[in-house]
Amino acid sequence: MSISFKVLTACPETGARLGLLETAHGNVETPAFMPVGTQGTVKGITVEELAELQTAMILGNCYHLYLRPGIEVIARAGGLHKLINWHGGILTDSGGFQIFSLGGMCRLDDGGVTFQSHIDGSTHYLTPERVTRLQNLLGSDIAMVLDQCPPYPSSREEMREAVERTSRWAWRCRQAHLRSDQALFAIVQGGVYPDLREISARDLVAMDFPGYAIGGLSVGEPKEEMYRTLEVTVPHLPAKKPRYLMGVGSPDALLEGVRRGIDLFDCVLPTRIARNGRVMTAGGYLTIRNAVYAADMSPLDRSCGCPVCRNYSRAYIRHLLNAGEVLGLRLTTYHNLYFLAQLMREIREALRQGNFARYYEANAPRLNKLFGGAV
Amino acid sequence: MSISFKVLTACPETGARLGLLETAHGNVETPAFMPVGTQGTVKGITVEELAELQTAMILGNCYHLYLRPGIEVIARAGGLHKLINWHGGILTDSGGFQIFSLGGMCRLDDGGVTFQSHIDGSTHYLTPERVTRLQNLLGSDIAMVLDQCPPYPSSREEMREAVERTSRWAWRCRQAHLRSDQALFAIVQGGVYPDLREISARDLVAMDFPGYAIGGLSVGEPKEEMYRTLEVTVPHLPAKKPRYLMGVGSPDALLEGVRRGIDLFDCVLPTRIARNGRVMTAGGYLTIRNAVYAADMSPLDRSCGCPVCRNYSRAYIRHLLNAGEVLGLRLTTYHNLYFLAQLMREIREALRQGNFARYYEANAPRLNKLFGGAV
Repeated sequence: MSISFKVLTACPETGARLGLLETAHGNVETPAFMPVGTQGTVKGITVEELAELQTAMILGNCYHLYLRPGIEVIARAGGLHKLINWHGGILTDSGGFQIFSLGGMCRLDDGGVTFQSHIDGSTHYLTPERVTRLQNLLGSDIAMVLDQCPPYPSSREEMREAVERTSRWAWRCRQAHLRSDQALFAIVQGGVYPDLREISARDLVAMDFPGYAIGGLSVGEPKEEMYRTLEVTVPHLPAKKPRYLMGVGSPDALLEGVRRGIDLFDCVLPTRIARNGRVMTAGGYLTIRNAVYAADMSPLDRSCGCPVCRNYSRAYIRHLLNAGEVLGLRLTTYHNLYFLAQLMREIREALRQGNFARYYEANAPRLNKLFGGAV
Repeated sequence: MSISFKVLTACPETGARLGLLETAHGNVETPAFMPVGTQGTVKGITVEELAELQTAMILGNCYHLYLRPGIEVIARAGGLHKLINWHGGILTDSGGFQIFSLGGMCRLDDGGVTFQSHIDGSTHYLTPERVTRLQNLLGSDIAMVLDQCPPYPSSREEMREAVERTSRWAWRCRQAHLRSDQALFAIVQGGVYPDLREISARDLVAMDFPGYAIGGLSVGEPKEEMYRTLEVTVPHLPAKKPRYLMGVGSPDALLEGVRRGIDLFDCVLPTRIARNGRVMTAGGYLTIRNAVYAADMSPLDRSCGCPVCRNYSRAYIRHLLNAGEVLGLRLTTYHNLYFLAQLMREIREALRQGNFARYYEANAPRLNKLFGGAV
């Protein structure tokens, strides 16, 4: 089966909605945050733990997996799910963002993109068709088109070109896409230019994809710009299809995104900051390696019910991180993923109860204050 | 309660015995291998996983924990078990071995040992009394005396001095030891000199400790020398007390140690080699990072029933290690600990069935061939 999506409840006062995304690997209640497992593993966390965290879908990255271990290895394993032993959903990003982030190490023509591996410097050429076929082989539940994501800020002219190329490439991906048990999502570009966002969305909607991502945000622009851009983009996307905001994972932006009609999110934020010893708590970010926590026997977050907070102290976790012990980042990563999963559960519950507008009013100011600044 | 130990069955043809060590944190069926958690964590493994592995007792290291996070922090947490959330047994090594391994960074007098921290170079002075009190505060189920462990090879004269000091220090540790719910074990030294081993054992046995370790082995001497030394040492230890061979964890040496009457073992070997991508299998050591495993969809060890071998391929684990992913070392570490736990279960089962001599004959040649060389 391919995916199916239905909106279960729409908030009458905001753009938020409760949805159900059905895939061959289980259902995803939306809005949902998807942890990132770039190289075929959410760093430091087992698939059993992901299941325990009620994770419905994780990300993989086609570019990274293509370079290492190679798509051939994964195909021989029977696909990415089998290789990594994950029974839930997988969305694979095409890797366009990663390739264009290589800067001088990538060269673009209208056929595709030539780049040098960040691992060994070897030269590769990827086209929309090839990236689509690679994701077919990976067997993810949702594949992403190859898009062009210019940096922030980019000129209107650069952005227009990227939007046009992204549309041409999206069509080529759609034509090359073969698997009926995998959905291919398009990616809207256009930076912070409302008219370009509209053009990009209209182009892609005309091609009738089963889902739409909003790319090119959370790339350095102020959060207000991101929210404004969502407001001028989402209305051009079909109400019945899932909407996925790429690269967003701070608690404040998740709530603001949901309010503006987003169903799916992903970001390395919770896992990346965890490895640096930063955790999300009801009181905001906490840098656990600070000396003040050396003998602090309280949990990371007193109001958190996760196993890490039930079983371990700040003092112990700080010790583990300071001593370079892997268990330290396992615990902080688990906690951060739990924190976001819990936030998304609360948001879905508010939508289910018809209380989302009230939930938003009660929580957005606090979350924006605690998490709205730079991490 | 303090510990109690009873020998359940002794093999009539070898020195091996099946025993039961009872502690305030559960029972340890012996012979047993204890995974090492130097800094308050078995590297990469949670306490839940240790329980799943049927681990009865782990090690902590007083020297390491004294330097970081500090005994005060651990005492405030309510002891090491509470800090690390481990409900099974803990044996703490005094850290004598680690301190003397610092070489030029440590200075010995008969009162104790002055050394510089390997972390920040700060100067510390530890005495037998202090090390005992620190372990009282850690609250481990078994504490170890502060001993002097000379390197291999050492002259007879150096070794004699170390034996004499170890005896004097053992007595001082015994006098300083306060906790009735913790057992203090002595450590027999004497290198590979049979007469010094006998002197050391007789000295310490006269002091009536609840258990005896054999230290100063597995420090670079040939395995044959180690086995010979066990044969001349064990007979001087009381049959009713547990015997613990420090620093041994290769499959061949575990079986040879059991045959010579050893009940407890510890070693960083299974966890350390796992982090370097080496795993123990029925076919010997396997270096999973070798290119030959790049697309090998078989498990680490076809004959192994552990969750890692049931769920993951060599290709995936190789990929994780090559990509620097923490999950890779979690999986290899788990497998190696399972491998040794399984070996010890087999050994205990053979003893229980009265089959140990046959088990030894059937397995020792193979294990010595596969694992007897350098790792």
